[in-house]
Amino acid sequence: MKLIVAIIQPHKLGEVKEALEAVDVNLMTVSNVLGQGRQKGHTEIYRGTREAGGLLRKVRLDIAVNEDFVERTIEAIVRGAHTGEIGDGKIFVLDLKECVRIGTGEHGSRAIG
Amino acid sequence: MKLIVAIIQPHKLGEVKEALEAVDVNLMTVSNVLGQGRQKGHTEIYRGTREAGGLLRKVRLDIAVNEDFVERTIEAIVRGAHTGEIGDGKIFVLDLKECVRIGTGEHGSRAIG
Amino acid sequence: MKLIVAIIQPHKLGEVKEALEAVDVNLMTVSNVLGQGRQKGHTEIYRGTREAGGLLRKVRLDIAVNEDFVERTIEAIVRGAHTGEIGDGKIFVLDLKECVRIGTGEHGSRAIG
Ligand SMILES: Nc1ncnc2c1ncn2[C@@H]1O[C@H](COP(=O)(O)OP(=O)(O)OP(=O)(O)O)[C@@H](O)[C@H]1O
Ligand SMILES: Nc1ncnc2c1ncn2[C@@H]1O[C@H](COP(=O)(O)OP(=O)(O)OP(=O)(O)O)[C@@H](O)[C@H]1O
Ligand SMILES: Nc1ncnc2c1ncn2[C@@H]1O[C@H](COP(=O)(O)OP(=O)(O)OP(=O)(O)O)[C@@H](O)[C@H]1O
Ligand SMILES: [Mg+2]
Ligand SMILES: [Mg+2]
Ligand SMILES: [Mg+2]
Repeated sequence: MKLIVAIIQPHKLGEVKEALEAVDVNLMTVSNVLGQGRQKGHTEIYRGTREAGGLLRKVRLDIAVNEDFVERTIEAIVRGAHTGEIGDGKIFVLDLKECVRIGTGEHGSRAIG
Repeated sequence: MKLIVAIIQPHKLGEVKEALEAVDVNLMTVSNVLGQGRQKGHTEIYRGTREAGGLLRKVRLDIAVNEDFVERTIEAIVRGAHTGEIGDGKIFVLDLKECVRIGTGEHGSRAIG
Repeated sequence: MKLIVAIIQPHKLGEVKEALEAVDVNLMTVSNVLGQGRQKGHTEIYRGTREAGGLLRKVRLDIAVNEDFVERTIEAIVRGAHTGEIGDGKIFVLDLKECVRIGTGEHGSRAIG
């Protein structure tokens, strides 16, 4: 199991969710974060993104998946988030040791999806 | 050391904190997130939870623990968060390679608690 | 590659960012979280930090780095965040299996910085 963390442009959330649903990835956790990328918050400001203390508003997705879903999840995020301009975002992949669905008590791979 | 990440219903935060304190887990980080579970944000809406763009408000807990606290921490979260209805939440467990208490410079297992 | 997660006092964000930039760590993700440390949210309240439901406002930094940047990153965070008083914060280090720069398609170590 892996935990995939993606930081994307806020206005790309809809497209990323659609791309994920198209490959059957429907479960995720979304949060509002602030980001500093290679441009240190400078260049991107001029492209209309709201600023807070030199940092740019970004959306973070946390998506836990089984191993056979890792590649398609990453590809779907890239497909939905990519413009080719700076600031498109980053994807981080972490090992997931255990997962529990609280409602049913299921754990491991069966609890992910 | 492990990092336990739990996504729970916001109105269950108090009960989960009490269940954690009862097993001597007192340190945690809490944040407001938005979640999409198996119901894709549809069914749960009718049960009074506030909605934001098809996503449901959830609370995220990050709890770093030593190995001998992993099981009791998971069990306490389940005890506090469980109703048996859909949307009760998920628990994710990650390996933690290092921990540092900034105030004292302690690191490793001693810095966790 | 490692993912370094730091929970610091909000008023220390500027100093921590400066300390990080001084060692050439310029990329990070910042979010607002609520924390419960060893004082269970009691003592620290009297030192002027705003409270929310017994929890204290903290800032979370997520910083993905290559192995040769781990030590300097941790040291810079400590340098910027340390006062010696309680509540200075914690640093957590996780293994990072993969990293992708969405804009360019680069992955692995080259995509981090
Ligand atoms: N090494 C990193 N650690 C933590 N967060 C990062 C890191 N790199 C990028 N991020 C997060 O991802 C967001 C988007 O990054 P961004 O796409 O600007 O990456 P970049 O490396 O600057 O590439 P580009 O040149 O395409 O802009 C940042 O605002 C930040 O929130
Ligand atoms: N695979 C996942 N990856 C990331 N976040 C998830 C995942 N599954 C669930 N979550 C988060 O946990 C929250 C609660 O999930 P939820 O309890 O609805 O899980 P579920 O699998 O839909 O089970 P149930 O049928 O009991 O509702 C979601 O709203 C989402 O924020
Ligand atoms: N074990 C932990 N798991 C998750 N988050 C933690 C943990 N310990 C601390 N934190 C987070 O870090 C913040 C700052 O912690 P804090 O510096 O108060 O640590 P402490 O162990 O109480 O040390 P001190 O005695 O120096 O206050 C907490 O408010 C919480 O958000
Ligand atoms: Mg950038
Ligand atoms: Mg659900
Ligand atoms: Mg404390």
